[in-house]
Amino acid sequence: MIKKIYVNGKDEVEFFKQLEERSGETDKKVSAVVNEIIDTVRKGGDAAVKAYTEKFDGKLPEYYEVPRDVINDALTEADPDFVNALLNSIENITDFHNRQKSRSFVNTKADGCILGQKVRGLDKVGLYVPGGTAAYPSSVLMNAIPAKIAGVKEIIMVTPPLKDGTPNKDILVAAGLCGVDRVFMSGGAQAIAALAYGTEEIPKVDKIVGPGNIYVATAKKLLYGVVDIDMVAGPSEILVMADETADPKFVAADLMSQAEHDKLASSILVTTSEKLADATIAEVERQMAYLERKDIIKYSLENYGAIIICNTKDEAVDMANRCAPEHLEVLFENPLEYVGRLDNAGSIFLGQYASEPLGDYYAGPNHVLPTSGTARFFSPLGVNSFEKRSSFIYYTEEALRQAKDDIVLVAEKEGLTAHANAIKVRFE
Amino acid sequence: MIKKIYVNGKDEVEFFKQLEERSGETDKKVSAVVNEIIDTVRKGGDAAVKAYTEKFDGKLPEYYEVPRDVINDALTEADPDFVNALLNSIENITDFHNRQKSRSFVNTKADGCILGQKVRGLDKVGLYVPGGTAAYPSSVLMNAIPAKIAGVKEIIMVTPPLKDGTPNKDILVAAGLCGVDRVFMSGGAQAIAALAYGTEEIPKVDKIVGPGNIYVATAKKLLYGVVDIDMVAGPSEILVMADETADPKFVAADLMSQAEHDKLASSILVTTSEKLADATIAEVERQMAYLERKDIIKYSLENYGAIIICNTKDEAVDMANRCAPEHLEVLFENPLEYVGRLDNAGSIFLGQYASEPLGDYYAGPNHVLPTSGTARFFSPLGVNSFEKRSSFIYYTEEALRQAKDDIVLVAEKEGLTAHANAIKVRFE
Repeated sequence: MIKKIYVNGKDEVEFFKQLEERSGETDKKVSAVVNEIIDTVRKGGDAAVKAYTEKFDGKLPEYYEVPRDVINDALTEADPDFVNALLNSIENITDFHNRQKSRSFVNTKADGCILGQKVRGLDKVGLYVPGGTAAYPSSVLMNAIPAKIAGVKEIIMVTPPLKDGTPNKDILVAAGLCGVDRVFMSGGAQAIAALAYGTEEIPKVDKIVGPGNIYVATAKKLLYGVVDIDMVAGPSEILVMADETADPKFVAADLMSQAEHDKLASSILVTTSEKLADATIAEVERQMAYLERKDIIKYSLENYGAIIICNTKDEAVDMANRCAPEHLEVLFENPLEYVGRLDNAGSIFLGQYASEPLGDYYAGPNHVLPTSGTARFFSPLGVNSFEKRSSFIYYTEEALRQAKDDIVLVAEKEGLTAHANAIKVRFE
Repeated sequence: MIKKIYVNGKDEVEFFKQLEERSGETDKKVSAVVNEIIDTVRKGGDAAVKAYTEKFDGKLPEYYEVPRDVINDALTEADPDFVNALLNSIENITDFHNRQKSRSFVNTKADGCILGQKVRGLDKVGLYVPGGTAAYPSSVLMNAIPAKIAGVKEIIMVTPPLKDGTPNKDILVAAGLCGVDRVFMSGGAQAIAALAYGTEEIPKVDKIVGPGNIYVATAKKLLYGVVDIDMVAGPSEILVMADETADPKFVAADLMSQAEHDKLASSILVTTSEKLADATIAEVERQMAYLERKDIIKYSLENYGAIIICNTKDEAVDMANRCAPEHLEVLFENPLEYVGRLDNAGSIFLGQYASEPLGDYYAGPNHVLPTSGTARFFSPLGVNSFEKRSSFIYYTEEALRQAKDDIVLVAEKEGLTAHANAIKVRFE
């Protein structure tokens, strides 16, 4: 069911090309609907947000803003093992992301001039958390922790209510543990619009992060520029590089852990061993039988999965760099030797025990990663995603006098005589 | 002609609101034209690019790719003072941007686990340089130097030919000095599409940077995701904060150096001194009389300029933070004391001699800055704009065994049982 492709310079290129076409254009009908929601919320504020919530979610939630004591109660009433698991994750995520913090710098020159760059956290950040089965506490951790480390002053979460109008308790627990400042029960494009423009109650933010359905994603894309956004996420993928030393049981399980996300997800094994390829196929069949989301897994593997059999490990490296996968597993002997050659990947998992879910939940690096081949130029979410920079320049009269002729000459070459004038008037 | 506004909590808010509305939506007609150009170039390659060049620029250029010896000749034949001025700028820009380089990091833990983040330069970057009067050699410097420092392997410049079909020599000089690798004579949306998808001769790049007209800007916006882009630039602005110690001659000149860029540019003086306000108005009239681009300056100052008179310096600081200007000048006594309170600005110019054109051409910080209030969340172009990151994780069997229960618990809470399975199979 998962197809085998033999590297011949044609079939594998064709397969990667097909993958690229998964993403597709923004749907015009969705854009029209979302544009209208944005306009209505911009003008109508909270009343408009609530009207949409009632329309799309069936009823108004228990509260618009979740009271602090409801969050605290969720924390004290939660399963201690769950809280403990999240606390262990938080410790690892915090340790890793602390190492990403940028520093301001300054160059104080001997002639009295001062040149520098200051780095600060954004003021306010909006965090979208989807409802239903896609409400992931781990996603709260991965977005809120780097924001906090960057120095963001206020994190405002928006999330749709459960069917009974109450908030999802697991999400509240994660929000409470990560120091999310305020939680509003509102989802969809209307919540994104509220964060972008601000309403009477929901603060206007500087950046919106977090996953969402097509309406949420389209709203973020349309409002990019009014606010910053994390990324335009497309279908996700895993590429596993494995040689004959890899365990097919592990390979099959990891391919399927990606495939269960979404019918459009892509799981690819690139291997130098035909024996491993066949054993992996058998393991996929065996394990899939007992997995809950087997329908999604089957569809995804049949349509966007592949086992690519290549002749050398160099070919496998080339293929990984060409694919630029979100997740890249290296199940080669001596996996660390390959890090320096893997140029395009969101996150790289090295060795038999660095299974992809380890990165999703626990190890520390972020799980919000560039998808659909965009690891060629985009990077994982991180502390720097929540930082802003300003440069600053202090100059002395004498230093400007030294620079004057150069500046005036280039400004006049460019036809910008008012630029030249601004320097000249200082020495008239 | 430049209006005075007295701070009263209403008029200045109204003025800033008006400014926000300068940017406006992407024009639908332009989008349709650009979409067609993109499709045609994607399918038709170089032949399509050349056909558009002939159509829009009137004739085919002397060469499609500028030969290396033509660039070398431009360098040897250039005015030595001009070359020298650029070399001085290059030295300062290089010194400043060298300080921005990110480092890879690694955490080698006692239990044998290894967590890290590697940083590399993008592989290929496309640099757009507009034609006509907007062909700025300084813009080549500000884009190419940080790319080189980030480790970008190949910089491909595209630029439309002059009317006689030859390349702009000043641009070639700047390109030669900065180590631009290849130069193609092609402009407009067709050049952007060629860089995004690649043609027979023009390489497919990972990121496109550089300013351009509405067609170029729209093409970049539409192709965002296929490639990375620098930013969606809107109309630009300067905000000058000045007290009674400031020289009105300098203030007026700096306001006009911004106003000459564009009719939509905005130049704002925020001052605690009514005397300075009136003296600045007189200086604007006097200096404007002899400036070449007086029509643009007049239009811009009348429509988007203002002198805001406030009661305290604190009010002025608040106003600067609210406006989030691209360029912020502080002509207060002891200007350095204010850096820590100025949260939203692309670049901050401190004191009487840090005139804005000093930053445009010479001092070292980048002149590609967030415009139209987006300094609230966007940052200046820099070395990190040309870097990409990948995280990596190596785990031991024993460490995963310790983490196993936590990961499985959270994965199952999230309903992702194939994720849980990927961990469990490793210990069956």
